[in-house]
Amino acid sequence: MSETALKQEQPSADRYPSRVGLEPKVSARLDPVVYGSAAMGPLDQKTLDFYQDNGFLHFESLLSSQEIETCVAELQRMRSDESIKVREEAVIEPDSRDLRSIFAVHEISDVMRKLCGHRKLVGIAEQLLGSEVYIHQSRINYKGGFRGKEFYWHSDFETWHVEDGVPAMRTVSCSISLTDNTPHNGPLMLIPGSHHRFVACVGQTPDDHYKSSLRRQELGVPDDESLTRMVQDFGIEAPVGPVGSVTFFECNVMHGSNSNITPLPRSNLFIVFNSLENKPVSPYCGLSPRPNFIGERQNFMSARMLARY
Amino acid sequence: MSETALKQEQPSADRYPSRVGLEPKVSARLDPVVYGSAAMGPLDQKTLDFYQDNGFLHFESLLSSQEIETCVAELQRMRSDESIKVREEAVIEPDSRDLRSIFAVHEISDVMRKLCGHRKLVGIAEQLLGSEVYIHQSRINYKGGFRGKEFYWHSDFETWHVEDGVPAMRTVSCSISLTDNTPHNGPLMLIPGSHHRFVACVGQTPDDHYKSSLRRQELGVPDDESLTRMVQDFGIEAPVGPVGSVTFFECNVMHGSNSNITPLPRSNLFIVFNSLENKPVSPYCGLSPRPNFIGERQNFMSARMLARY
Repeated sequence: MSETALKQEQPSADRYPSRVGLEPKVSARLDPVVYGSAAMGPLDQKTLDFYQDNGFLHFESLLSSQEIETCVAELQRMRSDESIKVREEAVIEPDSRDLRSIFAVHEISDVMRKLCGHRKLVGIAEQLLGSEVYIHQSRINYKGGFRGKEFYWHSDFETWHVEDGVPAMRTVSCSISLTDNTPHNGPLMLIPGSHHRFVACVGQTPDDHYKSSLRRQELGVPDDESLTRMVQDFGIEAPVGPVGSVTFFECNVMHGSNSNITPLPRSNLFIVFNSLENKPVSPYCGLSPRPNFIGERQNFMSARMLARY
Repeated sequence: MSETALKQEQPSADRYPSRVGLEPKVSARLDPVVYGSAAMGPLDQKTLDFYQDNGFLHFESLLSSQEIETCVAELQRMRSDESIKVREEAVIEPDSRDLRSIFAVHEISDVMRKLCGHRKLVGIAEQLLGSEVYIHQSRINYKGGFRGKEFYWHSDFETWHVEDGVPAMRTVSCSISLTDNTPHNGPLMLIPGSHHRFVACVGQTPDDHYKSSLRRQELGVPDDESLTRMVQDFGIEAPVGPVGSVTFFECNVMHGSNSNITPLPRSNLFIVFNSLENKPVSPYCGLSPRPNFIGERQNFMSARMLARY
């Protein structure tokens, strides 16, 4: 890419610098949390206020049981499909050869594409972000039973900003449980309210960082002191529920999950909706962007369209 | 030890063979669960029945807050005592140099000795086991925040039988929380009812197995299928509670814990009371017994005496 092209794409200042200093730094969020209004629907003011304060929303029965069943069957099909394991979109557990994640499932699977474009999900994302949305990333996470590894604490925005060039906090993730989530099988844990702070991490991003980071996160990791203060201030929530539960969480909310030694696997479909007014620029780390299947930067089709074709 | 001495010590048949076959095998428990009666006190019949069925009991306020405070302060003192880290009773985390466990704390620390001999704890153990008891093992477990590792599923009895020569299931563990246990910081998980089955594990015990097994369990590990069936049949319980909570659990109940990425450490004092009518014989694996600080085989003083001197 020529220097001129880069200059056009890159905004003048990085409002959320990270991985540039030797010391971690906590600063205030500079963007709104809720961009839309209750008048837009479907969420009422009380629900929007909850999201504003806590950075997440949890729904136990947003989708129909038939929609969920179809999706769970598709998950099983994809897991046993050997041709998927060898794709670049597939991430394998470091110690075993088990499937940990499949990216860009809205492009690989018709069933997943339709679910990613579900009007209820897209409607909520559009209201929270106050605009039409596209899919920055989609993936299935598969945390097997017995030996499922932890995902350490992180803010998704920190990575999407530094490595993908997403400029502002105007992005929301949607996690759909494809297995029962119990307090015991390593459920998603959130620090509610942590999205009001930005934790700049130490370290420098190496080339092709995604190849290792998707297996085991070592950069973009918040420091112990900032995490301790956040948990003291805000506590920890782990929204659990039966298969089909849906959790929306703000791109900068600190989250992670413990290991899973139970025999109960934990799988979810994870969809990242980004505002069409927040398209990525050049990555703030100065390196080449991650591949398109991890951070979309070519196809900005409105997510509304996904369920239609 | 002469062959004659060994023959005297070793009973004619191993009623719970494990680590001898190539296939895992699940068999029925051959020993009672509750040996005492409600008439002995302090537990009533209903509580004894619960233990009989579930293999554990949980108490939130058995000990006074002053007793707990003293014990927590002693834990802090011991953790910062560099002379303890180098003792053979200390176990260090494999990846860091953090303290994971200290064994034989009833011999190392006056405060811990008194708590191990607390009349309420000893009284319950004596009633459950229907006899006077001694301490087979005591230890502090320290699972630090952020990077605390999991303890995989296991039956304590399987190890104590195979490696220490404890003949029968007439042993009870008592875990006293020295930190708040929440659903999020890797609490003890139990499979209630699993103590009615004995899962024989595959593999053969190597010499000095304890040196690695205390860091990371790889032998005496139940197979996936037996675990899956147990969880299907019985479910999982994770008794949590504030600092000072006490959990008694039967020596053969399957238990373990997930990792802990929260900033909240999880420490407990763990006391194993064995019936004086169930003293260890030669280890059933045929090897030398583990050191005395891990499995007592010399000092069979009644636990009642511990609080007195």
